Amino acid sequence: MKPNDLPPATTPWTLARRAERMNPSVIREILKVTEKPGIISFAGGLPSPKTFPVSAFADACAKVLREDGQAALQYAASEGYGPLREAVADQLPWAVDPAQVLITTGSQQGLDLVAKVLIDSDSRVLVETPTYLGALQAFTPMEPTIEAVASDDEGIDVADLERRIGQGADRARFLYVLPNFQNPTGRSMSEARRAALVACAAARGLPIIEDNPYGDLWFDVEPPLPLSARNPEGCIYLGSFSKVLAPGLRLGFIVAPRAVYPKLLQAKQAADLHSPGFNQRMVAEVLKDGFLDRHVPTIRALYKSQCQAMLTCLEREMQGLDVQWNSPDGGMFLWVRLPEGVSAIDLLPRAVDKGVAFVPGAAFYATEPDARTLRLSFVTASVEQIRIGVAALALAIRDQLKG
Amino acid sequence: MKPNDLPPATTPWTLARRAERMNPSVIREILKVTEKPGIISFAGGLPSPKTFPVSAFADACAKVLREDGQAALQYAASEGYGPLREAVADQLPWAVDPAQVLITTGSQQGLDLVAKVLIDSDSRVLVETPTYLGALQAFTPMEPTIEAVASDDEGIDVADLERRIGQGADRARFLYVLPNFQNPTGRSMSEARRAALVACAAARGLPIIEDNPYGDLWFDVEPPLPLSARNPEGCIYLGSFSKVLAPGLRLGFIVAPRAVYPKLLQAKQAADLHSPGFNQRMVAEVLKDGFLDRHVPTIRALYKSQCQAMLTCLEREMQGLDVQWNSPDGGMFLWVRLPEGVSAIDLLPRAVDKGVAFVPGAAFYATEPDARTLRLSFVTASVEQIRIGVAALALAIRDQLKG
Repeated sequence: MKPNDLPPATTPWTLARRAERMNPSVIREILKVTEKPGIISFAGGLPSPKTFPVSAFADACAKVLREDGQAALQYAASEGYGPLREAVADQLPWAVDPAQVLITTGSQQGLDLVAKVLIDSDSRVLVETPTYLGALQAFTPMEPTIEAVASDDEGIDVADLERRIGQGADRARFLYVLPNFQNPTGRSMSEARRAALVACAAARGLPIIEDNPYGDLWFDVEPPLPLSARNPEGCIYLGSFSKVLAPGLRLGFIVAPRAVYPKLLQAKQAADLHSPGFNQRMVAEVLKDGFLDRHVPTIRALYKSQCQAMLTCLEREMQGLDVQWNSPDGGMFLWVRLPEGVSAIDLLPRAVDKGVAFVPGAAFYATEPDARTLRLSFVTASVEQIRIGVAALALAIRDQLKG
Repeated sequence: MKPNDLPPATTPWTLARRAERMNPSVIREILKVTEKPGIISFAGGLPSPKTFPVSAFADACAKVLREDGQAALQYAASEGYGPLREAVADQLPWAVDPAQVLITTGSQQGLDLVAKVLIDSDSRVLVETPTYLGALQAFTPMEPTIEAVASDDEGIDVADLERRIGQGADRARFLYVLPNFQNPTGRSMSEARRAALVACAAARGLPIIEDNPYGDLWFDVEPPLPLSARNPEGCIYLGSFSKVLAPGLRLGFIVAPRAVYPKLLQAKQAADLHSPGFNQRMVAEVLKDGFLDRHVPTIRALYKSQCQAMLTCLEREMQGLDVQWNSPDGGMFLWVRLPEGVSAIDLLPRAVDKGVAFVPGAAFYATEPDARTLRLSFVTASVEQIRIGVAALALAIRDQLKG
């Protein structure tokens, strides 16, 4: 018997009901094998480290510690560092008061705070089909019923949403959406769909949680206005510095209407007092003088070329196989559908044997998964690795079809 | 009507029940007045910024970004940075496997994760009288019944604890204790009391959450062994780098037995994915070559001299007043009891008028507060400010007694 498998009876610990719901993801277990050296991974959601502005951070660190070291290292306000809140408000494409900005420890914490403040056990929340796995993990401990709203290439199906909202005590607490270059599918919501969704949600009193970590990573055309810009009092907006600067600083933000901001702030205080003030000052320093205006276009160009490389390889390698995929307009992921009868979970070990990894799409469904889907990241691997990895994936599919 | 007072009916937001329990603390509102410039504050729990090793951090930052920049800025494992987990395990006074160490975003996050994993709504948790306010704030959202166990100058009253533990489904989920230089009282648990507590808890199957942010800040004598060292399988231990290095990096840790570690890790992942890898590497770098062995004694010496200064001032200024206080053996706080009929909450505005602030003790009681108590921090203000502030406090008490 391994030490981790000691029977619970030998311990005094009683776990909360919500802890029983936190199950080690089957997929996470599978993905552990993808960490073997030599595996080409299209699995992770890791930005390309080539895009991290290491020397700008080095300059900013040195400056912050030299000019403001003691304050940067002291306890600080739970709301976040004032100049960073102002910078966030300034960069958003609608009128945002910095007083409505709450700095979070990555946008994952934004999801955790939203869950704590808005979800009661057995209350209902609505999500896309499929949706971001990390959101499911953040919502689940608060014990909601999670309902998946039908979605297509333009985003949420508003007619299906209408049917599901409910009324009174049965009304869903919120709809969670990722309108730009969604994780996992890479899909974006069209202008028409955004307009229809916001009108429906406003008319029916359904709050929207809008998660936008990838919105700046467009290839050719900036996406339509965020939902929050169209109805700020009815939306909570989550943003992140992880994809435009670097994830290792763990900084994101919430923009929330006055009806919920004070509660999110109290939940933040109880969760970790505040996000690291040192990191907030570093980022505020780096953001000065329009840094993102120069930096983000380099990320867009890199990711566009990597996406193009993956699409080209898919065209070439998947010939004669009934494999489908989309062509995202930005972000980090594309979405693949395997031939009839081929399950992505079954395919994964075979693909890993051939040296390539991906995430089976099943991980991203709140309710019934489509077993034929899988997510490919095109940003972490190099173009050369993409070429080799897509060929290996095609080989694995061919083998799988042979049985 | 102020914008923050818009009636809820104008918004689509329905708050979770737990959010209704998160009330803006009356005391926090009072303390806002203490942020006026010129007020001498004994209120905050802020370490002296003079103790922050700014130049060591500057060197560490530069080195980490130069040698390991891309990895430091990338997403990382939820458990924490390996070398930091090893450093934590190494510094603890009992045999700890680094695999049992979870790095957290400050030890406040440790409390949040413990609450999520161990508290069901209406389950019972036990705390000291008084106890750390931040723990109450972390536990409350999970909707427990919080019971205060009688406590004296040596710590928890084990006979009262025995009566309260309960059995079966009614058994308390855990006892939360802060055995060293407790916040708010500055009290420490004696060796005899620790032994009795651990024996009682082990015999009755009561888990202990041991919070130890101040244990390294002893003045003359190292405190007795932690409770966790005496029964590692029955205790979760929370530690922090906030008091020995700096709070602005937001780094703490949990040491947890195997029966609960995997659930704490899953809760951590859902809460913020991981604590900033950059900060973890900085601290691991600073900790090398026994840095704390040289640095912490300088903090101890400073805090001891500041505590001594405050005690001397109290002796001098409180003459003839029926005011009582203790003499802590370490940490950051001492605990004062006002004359009969004087409430610390009533005293605060008068004290602030005279230029000095403190935290009324009522903030720290889970159930019935002792209105005559208050907490003084002796580490943030200078010795000169302590002299002026204690005199102002005495004056305010005299005025208050006159009515």
